[in-house]
Amino acid sequence: MAMDVVWWEAGEPPAVGFVDQRALPGKLARERATTTGEVVETIASLGVRGAPCIGVFGAYGVALVRLHHADDDGAFEGAAARIRAARPTAVNLGWAVDRMLLAGATLEEARAIHAEQLAVDRAMGAFGAELLPVKGAVLTHCNTGPFATAGTGTALGVIIAAHDAGKKLHVYVDETRPLLQGARLTTFELAAAGVPATLIADGAAAATMRAKDVKAVVVGADRIARNGDTANKIGTFGVAIAAAHLGIPFYVAAPRSTIDFTLATGDAIEIEERHPEEVRSLGGRPTAAEDTAVYNPAFDVTPGRLIAGIITEYGVARPPYDESIPDLATRPSFAVLQH
Amino acid sequence: MAMDVVWWEAGEPPAVGFVDQRALPGKLARERATTTGEVVETIASLGVRGAPCIGVFGAYGVALVRLHHADDDGAFEGAAARIRAARPTAVNLGWAVDRMLLAGATLEEARAIHAEQLAVDRAMGAFGAELLPVKGAVLTHCNTGPFATAGTGTALGVIIAAHDAGKKLHVYVDETRPLLQGARLTTFELAAAGVPATLIADGAAAATMRAKDVKAVVVGADRIARNGDTANKIGTFGVAIAAAHLGIPFYVAAPRSTIDFTLATGDAIEIEERHPEEVRSLGGRPTAAEDTAVYNPAFDVTPGRLIAGIITEYGVARPPYDESIPDLATRPSFAVLQH
Repeated sequence: MAMDVVWWEAGEPPAVGFVDQRALPGKLARERATTTGEVVETIASLGVRGAPCIGVFGAYGVALVRLHHADDDGAFEGAAARIRAARPTAVNLGWAVDRMLLAGATLEEARAIHAEQLAVDRAMGAFGAELLPVKGAVLTHCNTGPFATAGTGTALGVIIAAHDAGKKLHVYVDETRPLLQGARLTTFELAAAGVPATLIADGAAAATMRAKDVKAVVVGADRIARNGDTANKIGTFGVAIAAAHLGIPFYVAAPRSTIDFTLATGDAIEIEERHPEEVRSLGGRPTAAEDTAVYNPAFDVTPGRLIAGIITEYGVARPPYDESIPDLATRPSFAVLQH
Repeated sequence: MAMDVVWWEAGEPPAVGFVDQRALPGKLARERATTTGEVVETIASLGVRGAPCIGVFGAYGVALVRLHHADDDGAFEGAAARIRAARPTAVNLGWAVDRMLLAGATLEEARAIHAEQLAVDRAMGAFGAELLPVKGAVLTHCNTGPFATAGTGTALGVIIAAHDAGKKLHVYVDETRPLLQGARLTTFELAAAGVPATLIADGAAAATMRAKDVKAVVVGADRIARNGDTANKIGTFGVAIAAAHLGIPFYVAAPRSTIDFTLATGDAIEIEERHPEEVRSLGGRPTAAEDTAVYNPAFDVTPGRLIAGIITEYGVARPPYDESIPDLATRPSFAVLQH
């Protein structure tokens, strides 16, 4: 079962409930945002993160501020615009706010957005679970579970679905420096789902695959090109190379919305570089001298040829991706398929 | 030039001087051990670390306590035994203390041990420097410089020797979780040697090799089998696989004393597992819940077939290692060769 990460709280005052991801790994803090300011602040300061999760939270937020300004369209539109701008680069947030505005900003529409996210995640989980062994070790990188999508997750959704279907999995979790999403979030999600898991340093991934007889690797994606080249959290490329070297299938789990059908290959994907301080410190403590030069790419690109399958809500795309991925673009929208 | 990490201080009282590695990256603390207790405490609490460095420090320590107990052999032998036991698994420490006892525990013998370490390191540096490009990026893992050997280092000694010979290198340094020897120590050594360097997260190694056109990888070793299989700091295996995938030569630099001529392959090398808390925390701050299971191997074994050359003080051993490594066992001792 997936844990609730974002939810609606009726009552006086109504609120958008959420698990505060800033409080982890210390504690599971269930918080409530009751004002426009609290909704914006929660998004901006990473109380919720992960593009789909931010989208769901933002949708409930728009429903909340509509209640506050039931008779004042100007005030409502200003509040919605503030939510939309809380994290400018989060594509799902803008999409969710726009959809809410088109649909009258009703609570029902927010619930529909959330339900569709869950349905997409569950479909990926069902297709992906079949790829995993009946019993054995799997490995994952970064955070791709409920904290990332407010549903069941992408790669972790696949692993949790396989566990729920009775497969006896043991998950090795890369801590995922520099921001430690694997250590802080993924180990928590797996514990909440009752899936046995063990944390490792990123450098231990190759040795762990060999020593612990890892049967499959599953990761998420930030952007996928038509040939299967996949941008994902820094570290993914090295894990994929090690899996190939050891003959272990390497899978990517991502909704169709992650595929950029305009990109022929991953060569054109620009890699964001983040602040050096993320690598030079941890939790405010320096790990190197303050003038140390740092290269801190947020993502890397794994060539499609290293990927055994791309798990989407429409099924598993297999090589050659130049054929299987464009085919996904022709499918009807998933929300329509559900009805 | 190599920096001084361990040295003798004449004066009143005489002392063994050392750079306190516990104070890094915060500051370069030059400390003095003047008593048996301070010598033992410095070794036991990792004020000095790296097997050869501990050996040199221990040798000076024995010379120091001989001065303290010039007329009391019993007290001297007890003090030397305490130094010998300060880190039971450090092979070089036992070797150095025993050699000091055989040689009358003179300061001259301690200086000879130190000088031989420097000569071995310089020979490795000269042989290895020829393998590196005239200009370009190289990558290394963990700490293998002056802090590790009290000389010029193994892998980092090679890199610094190439730099001193006029090669225009830029070094990418894996931070080397969990203990961050790369971030804390290697970046410091490279800055002290004037070699341009950039720190990266371990997960960024493969992406960095590709994006920054890395021309060679050089690492150290903890134990080498007759077929070239090499145990080294956790993370080395993954770096070697990535280098092979990208067509980048991967070199190991280690003195002959690191080769275990009794081992046919690396399969029999037992991998020490260290405390889970190293991965679950950093600098006392938790990075995961305290009951999170952890797999924390201290080392991994890189197959000899991934290694382009093993740089020793006798020259570079090349594949097939089953022939080139046993040949090294037949050479006269390096100290003899120097005279």
